[in-house]
Amino acid sequence: MQKRSTPRSLGLWMGQMPVGPYNDITDVPGVRVGNISLIKGVGPLVPSGGGPVRTGVTAILPCSDNLYRHPCRAGIEVINGYGKSLGVPFIQEMGILNCPILLTNTLSVNDVAHGVITYLLQQNPEIGKDVRTPNVVVMECDDSYLNDIRGRHVKPWDALLALQRATKGPIEQGNIGAGVGMSCFQMKGGIGSSSRLVHQSGSNYVVGMLVLANFGLLRDFLLSGVPVGQSLSIRGVGCIPGSLILVGITDAPLSRWQLKQLARRASLGMARTGSISMAGSGDFCLMVSTYSSESNDYLSDWELDDFFRAAVEASAESIWNALFLAQTMEGRDGNTRYALPIEETLKIVRSWHGGLGPR
Amino acid sequence: MQKRSTPRSLGLWMGQMPVGPYNDITDVPGVRVGNISLIKGVGPLVPSGGGPVRTGVTAILPCSDNLYRHPCRAGIEVINGYGKSLGVPFIQEMGILNCPILLTNTLSVNDVAHGVITYLLQQNPEIGKDVRTPNVVVMECDDSYLNDIRGRHVKPWDALLALQRATKGPIEQGNIGAGVGMSCFQMKGGIGSSSRLVHQSGSNYVVGMLVLANFGLLRDFLLSGVPVGQSLSIRGVGCIPGSLILVGITDAPLSRWQLKQLARRASLGMARTGSISMAGSGDFCLMVSTYSSESNDYLSDWELDDFFRAAVEASAESIWNALFLAQTMEGRDGNTRYALPIEETLKIVRSWHGGLGPR
Amino acid sequence: MQKRSTPRSLGLWMGQMPVGPYNDITDVPGVRVGNISLIKGVGPLVPSGGGPVRTGVTAILPCSDNLYRHPCRAGIEVINGYGKSLGVPFIQEMGILNCPILLTNTLSVNDVAHGVITYLLQQNPEIGKDVRTPNVVVMECDDSYLNDIRGRHVKPWDALLALQRATKGPIEQGNIGAGVGMSCFQMKGGIGSSSRLVHQSGSNYVVGMLVLANFGLLRDFLLSGVPVGQSLSIRGVGCIPGSLILVGITDAPLSRWQLKQLARRASLGMARTGSISMAGSGDFCLMVSTYSSESNDYLSDWELDDFFRAAVEASAESIWNALFLAQTMEGRDGNTRYALPIEETLKIVRSWHGGLGPR
Amino acid sequence: MQKRSTPRSLGLWMGQMPVGPYNDITDVPGVRVGNISLIKGVGPLVPSGGGPVRTGVTAILPCSDNLYRHPCRAGIEVINGYGKSLGVPFIQEMGILNCPILLTNTLSVNDVAHGVITYLLQQNPEIGKDVRTPNVVVMECDDSYLNDIRGRHVKPWDALLALQRATKGPIEQGNIGAGVGMSCFQMKGGIGSSSRLVHQSGSNYVVGMLVLANFGLLRDFLLSGVPVGQSLSIRGVGCIPGSLILVGITDAPLSRWQLKQLARRASLGMARTGSISMAGSGDFCLMVSTYSSESNDYLSDWELDDFFRAAVEASAESIWNALFLAQTMEGRDGNTRYALPIEETLKIVRSWHGGLGPR
Repeated sequence: MQKRSTPRSLGLWMGQMPVGPYNDITDVPGVRVGNISLIKGVGPLVPSGGGPVRTGVTAILPCSDNLYRHPCRAGIEVINGYGKSLGVPFIQEMGILNCPILLTNTLSVNDVAHGVITYLLQQNPEIGKDVRTPNVVVMECDDSYLNDIRGRHVKPWDALLALQRATKGPIEQGNIGAGVGMSCFQMKGGIGSSSRLVHQSGSNYVVGMLVLANFGLLRDFLLSGVPVGQSLSIRGVGCIPGSLILVGITDAPLSRWQLKQLARRASLGMARTGSISMAGSGDFCLMVSTYSSESNDYLSDWELDDFFRAAVEASAESIWNALFLAQTMEGRDGNTRYALPIEETLKIVRSWHGGLGPR
Repeated sequence: MQKRSTPRSLGLWMGQMPVGPYNDITDVPGVRVGNISLIKGVGPLVPSGGGPVRTGVTAILPCSDNLYRHPCRAGIEVINGYGKSLGVPFIQEMGILNCPILLTNTLSVNDVAHGVITYLLQQNPEIGKDVRTPNVVVMECDDSYLNDIRGRHVKPWDALLALQRATKGPIEQGNIGAGVGMSCFQMKGGIGSSSRLVHQSGSNYVVGMLVLANFGLLRDFLLSGVPVGQSLSIRGVGCIPGSLILVGITDAPLSRWQLKQLARRASLGMARTGSISMAGSGDFCLMVSTYSSESNDYLSDWELDDFFRAAVEASAESIWNALFLAQTMEGRDGNTRYALPIEETLKIVRSWHGGLGPR
Repeated sequence: MQKRSTPRSLGLWMGQMPVGPYNDITDVPGVRVGNISLIKGVGPLVPSGGGPVRTGVTAILPCSDNLYRHPCRAGIEVINGYGKSLGVPFIQEMGILNCPILLTNTLSVNDVAHGVITYLLQQNPEIGKDVRTPNVVVMECDDSYLNDIRGRHVKPWDALLALQRATKGPIEQGNIGAGVGMSCFQMKGGIGSSSRLVHQSGSNYVVGMLVLANFGLLRDFLLSGVPVGQSLSIRGVGCIPGSLILVGITDAPLSRWQLKQLARRASLGMARTGSISMAGSGDFCLMVSTYSSESNDYLSDWELDDFFRAAVEASAESIWNALFLAQTMEGRDGNTRYALPIEETLKIVRSWHGGLGPR
Repeated sequence: MQKRSTPRSLGLWMGQMPVGPYNDITDVPGVRVGNISLIKGVGPLVPSGGGPVRTGVTAILPCSDNLYRHPCRAGIEVINGYGKSLGVPFIQEMGILNCPILLTNTLSVNDVAHGVITYLLQQNPEIGKDVRTPNVVVMECDDSYLNDIRGRHVKPWDALLALQRATKGPIEQGNIGAGVGMSCFQMKGGIGSSSRLVHQSGSNYVVGMLVLANFGLLRDFLLSGVPVGQSLSIRGVGCIPGSLILVGITDAPLSRWQLKQLARRASLGMARTGSISMAGSGDFCLMVSTYSSESNDYLSDWELDDFFRAAVEASAESIWNALFLAQTMEGRDGNTRYALPIEETLKIVRSWHGGLGPR
């Protein structure tokens, strides 16, 4: 296994705002993350579900409450809707999240959802007689470059297990959970996370982001403004449009209206990594507040800018973290996604003077 | 079984436009509909999936083509997004339908989707290596007033069977397929359908609608403007918010932009039946054109009004048809949805002079 | 001048909910409405602004506060965006109204806005040094069938006068203010209004609507479900696409999110009058709450249904009121819009049994 | 007058795509731009319109056609709707532009619109009898930090003059037209422009952007990834939320649906300059195709990525160009916006190694 480090630990400038203790989404009090990673087999794709398997599930629990009974406020931004995520229209209409958030591959959305429903039915015997119904949220990216996606290897119980395993941070990043088989800028992608601290009106808040990064062409990759993707010696192969799921959680008292505005800013962080939101990329951002949904005591609209700044920075750093922490992986048919070559990247960055050439 | 008739056959005014030969969605050339109805058991709800079962699946195939390879243009209108339908954001972004349309109950969406994916994988060996992925569309209403919805009795193979059984019309309506357990205006609802013929710029087109009607309070029910719901002797019980799924298909050469506009008009037809789109009602309209998506030879924006009129009328009549054709059904725990009492309804209508009292 | 009566006073069924004392928008405490009606000249259109003039301005002040300093919560629904109204995106983004609402003809929007800005600058010397700027709201319909619209006869001072004249109700309806030159279902349209009382969670609230009705073809006109437009002996001439502006105000504590949902329901009331929202019709609904915007103490989402019902009913009745109260008017080039013939209409309604023919 | 240069001419990396001959919006065949700059008076603000005046109008004519009679396809993206632009809902609904595009200050939108209507009435005697009406598009930013905005110094005839003066490129940038009084990152902003060449499916196309840049805090300013704003010795004063108007034109055969998608990508270019789309920033992108709107022969959705890349790059470079080409300006009350200090900026950039510190 290669030694991997975050860009921040290597001295790269990641923004102006302070980060939380773990610099990941679990810096937001109460947030738990659980993963199931499915890695099995090598070599050619074996039809009818024979693998190789390179996929998984990631479960995000924003708080320890029973979400069905005590939903969180939430907002969603569809940056580019070329995606198959489940649960989007309900959040757009109601501005609430009443289920945990699950991430997986495109063709396993419904098996994961089946597991989540089992979990919800167990916890909430009133479902089925209640006026309300749960809105299951499963978001996805396409890992078929490495994974036998047709095999639908993620099973309902994997979702249950991921939920069960969810723990406080610090979290693992890179080739973990739903990130196992993902690609980003034609290198190895996966799960990344970052956080920012916001001091507003006398209180301290956290904005945490977690991404499932699976988008982009090598040629577009920017690292802190440097077009590293254009200079790397690896070649971009296996151009699959991909997608990006951004999940943000904050403990700040933001209304659903404000969370929707905050979700929109995540796309600006995505842009800093070089994304052009390609036609075939399903780019979504879900933003959740764990602040009591019983209270309507929100921040004012004029107190949001630091949250916007936090969402932009943490989104960009999450994507870069996914790239820096993911490991090279060989998948089906010998398809291989190479990890971002850290040493070469640093060399390119060092010799870059905003495009002005060497001194 | 009660004798049921459509409101049109009983002489009620259903609008000004001509209808197709079957007055249902299969008047649109190539459209096929298939149903699986699951009715099993009586009496109290037996925990852990013991029934009684009152549910099903309805499959709508807009054309005989392989939709994954030859998608249709499509537009969607979220009238009120309190729903858990699958496949909405992709259609909103891309304006295409590349899978058949399935209807079922809220908690069975993912099992049905599992079946649809099996169907698609069988038909399209390129999935998993292709740059594209299928966008599975499963729309839902909540039938838990009659059905053991927690039991998730619809299985993936039921979706496959419904697809297999899909045939040309005329179609069955009322307690069929996904409509088996549905309620509408606190009476028995379910599947309804209607069509309109449009003559535009020298050509003849059809607009067909099919609804899954599961919404509303008795007190709000309007029949052709008459507040019948306020006068009926049955009592509205079991107020569950419900939902309404409207699916429209046309053979007219409409662009995705125009289909989205057309979808929006379906809500105006819904309104004629008395709907106020209650807070907890998931009201969606999906509108599809079977006109070759390879061609960009559309009607002009100024030629749409007759299509709008057609969508309004056919949406309203579809809902009324669901009510007139559904049969009384007893479900779990003795919960019973009574069929709209046709004779009493006609009596109320006959004595109604736009609210002006008897002559 | 013809004797005109409201449909309600004639015994027509207008819905199930109770109405306020005036049955107009000024039933909402604090609401004031002011009109300037410009009627001048007869005969052929005289180029270069020579008239005849059939137009005006209507000003709606939701409360007596300085709105710039104490904005109201607001939501907007674009039913069909074929319109040229000013101020829409700001309300969509921010959910606040910080200016009075003005209505006028399409080509006078900017002259009216000029007057509103003058009014705001006078009242608020801080504008120009403030971080905020006012979002002027001027909504419009096209009265060119009767009016010399090219003449732009509405001047900035007319807007100022309309604001100055704004008074409590009851308000005038029909050919007044912005309604002077408007057409509806190819008959004379204009200003209409209605209200509903809502009792929710121990408190009493009012929902008031005011419409500028200028849309539709005679053939589509429904009166309480009766297709009166198809039976009237007058002929539909001068088909101009038209538009519909719906303005709603309530004193209920609704959030901007909820007001947006409420605004959406107005289209369902519009549908009851037979509108199909024609391709060239600019149909907008703006919904405002006068409840203190400093408080975040809203009703819950599950307490909205009666407000939805109120908005649907009051929207429909407002449109019908505009038609019943407007007077026949001759405009430019002898173009004449006939008032809805009340006696004939009642005869048609009386003989109508939901389409079932005479007893 | 200071010597100003574009960042590209100074060797800064501006992206990977080739630019047009002028590297401005007039590289798109047929596009013309005209400006009226109003600069008058110095010293303290004189009430009642006494100046000082620092404002103007910019007119953009996408093609030489009469747009009212031969509209262009258009799409709009509201990045953050805190703005008062005129003409947005019509374009969102219809996807067409039937008037030239004008830019000015917030309180002069309606005076400019008055001028545009005069221009349209002169050119099109059918307006007022036609079923269609023009949708005037005037977009705005708030220049009140430097300008006597309350004075409304832009008059209708200034709009007419700007239209009249419109010529082919190369265009002036910086303190010109609507850009005269604008601020960006608390430095002097204004008009900026850039273009990209796209080779797609055997044909060559141009994407041109023109921005009115008036947003952001100094601390957020990024130049090609370098946080220059954090190191500059000038201080950020006069924090006014500001706005950003992005106008894009292409000669590529893109549908209105695709133009809307393209408009959305402009925000990703904006993000590269450090924008976080502050709560009070009205950020809009209007994207227009000059390709014959009579033809429906569009590029496929899978051919858009290079256009997306072009819009991202040209949007970012346009903003940087506005900053590099604008000159220091003193406005009302001695308020001064300093031009971006080019030498100091280059020094900062040269010493920047992606945050890795000096070698």
